[in-house]
Amino acid sequence: MKAWALSGAPKQLWPKDLNQQLLTAKKSGDLIIGVDRGALLLKEMGMKIDVAEGDFDSLQKNELRLIEQNVRDIRYSIPEKDLTDTEMAIRCAFIDYHVSYLTLFGATGGRLDHFLSNLFMVLKPEFNQFAEKIELIDQQNSIRFYNCGHHVIKKLSTYKYFGVIPLTAVKNLKIAGAKYNLNDFNGVNPISFSSNEFLLNVNQFGLSFEKGVVAVIQSRDVNRFQNIK
Amino acid sequence: MKAWALSGAPKQLWPKDLNQQLLTAKKSGDLIIGVDRGALLLKEMGMKIDVAEGDFDSLQKNELRLIEQNVRDIRYSIPEKDLTDTEMAIRCAFIDYHVSYLTLFGATGGRLDHFLSNLFMVLKPEFNQFAEKIELIDQQNSIRFYNCGHHVIKKLSTYKYFGVIPLTAVKNLKIAGAKYNLNDFNGVNPISFSSNEFLLNVNQFGLSFEKGVVAVIQSRDVNRFQNIK
Repeated sequence: MKAWALSGAPKQLWPKDLNQQLLTAKKSGDLIIGVDRGALLLKEMGMKIDVAEGDFDSLQKNELRLIEQNVRDIRYSIPEKDLTDTEMAIRCAFIDYHVSYLTLFGATGGRLDHFLSNLFMVLKPEFNQFAEKIELIDQQNSIRFYNCGHHVIKKLSTYKYFGVIPLTAVKNLKIAGAKYNLNDFNGVNPISFSSNEFLLNVNQFGLSFEKGVVAVIQSRDVNRFQNIK
Repeated sequence: MKAWALSGAPKQLWPKDLNQQLLTAKKSGDLIIGVDRGALLLKEMGMKIDVAEGDFDSLQKNELRLIEQNVRDIRYSIPEKDLTDTEMAIRCAFIDYHVSYLTLFGATGGRLDHFLSNLFMVLKPEFNQFAEKIELIDQQNSIRFYNCGHHVIKKLSTYKYFGVIPLTAVKNLKIAGAKYNLNDFNGVNPISFSSNEFLLNVNQFGLSFEKGVVAVIQSRDVNRFQNIK
């Protein structure tokens, strides 16, 4: 079973086909998780929610009541907690429900301290074991995480660019078979090697490194930038 | 002299009063920089641009011609370059124009590999010297950077929350005089201590650390999340 979670970041950043993706997931018996205000947003989409998680301080009383009437498994956190709502959702998905993969929507944009919590989460010892099973998706981006080793990164359709972003110190980082390759890069700080591209008719590239955690962001421009008059 | 730069990330994320801020800056004799598509966006706002910078591969020919006819100082980069357009703008502002401070709009959101390039830029040795003189602003966030030492962080009006985000290894990180304090935190990886708040009637907090670079993001929710029916 896979899990799909929606957090409360801006609706404008949702993939256009979010509703369809979630309906398909639901039909396959996957787990649908509402993270804080994301639970209300799912309800408003008409989606049946399996788990709701959060301190719900972004909900009004009647909104919370609606969630409580419709969701069997609700996990209340306190605002002054050590784990973020997203981290609680990850713990619940992988530990309690034993899912194999978690796709997270609504976890980018908006308040950037929140986005960075979500981005850096996989660096924490407790969550690092799930790094390669988590994906953050919004309208323009797919973010995946890799621990050290050799990886083949497949091109996702509809994305043009990719960035390779060491989030920690890395040793002998290699990008091979891409437009811009990199050989044995060593660094101690995070850095974003952005705006790389797949080679024509080669829908993958090789990524390897001996230490650390690396994010790969596949991204695309949106039309609105091309049509400003 | 200060500098104000606009990059090409989503218009939707601009502060509501961007136009007014830039007009005020211009009147004070500050430098206005258009970064790649940001140059066209400034032109469309009716703003006089002092410097345009970028590979301009996001512009159509007639759009680039418009920039060339209106901007005296244009710096063309090649797409296959080692510096990002933002990094070129920073070099130009601080080294060539000797500005004292740079505020950057349009550098968040959109393609997140670009945003992370902008966020991690101050970790590069060449740019670290400017870390405390750079601010990234969008509709919900103000991002500032601090090198090690003791800092007093002043509350910006209209922001409710702040996050303290070590972007590198840090030693003895302290947050004092805030809603959630932190004492002698040591870590090797980036982490986001998000959703902190200033104390009531205390419009500042103390931040100190002995090693590394820390971002402070002051942020706010936007009304649209509170009013979804």
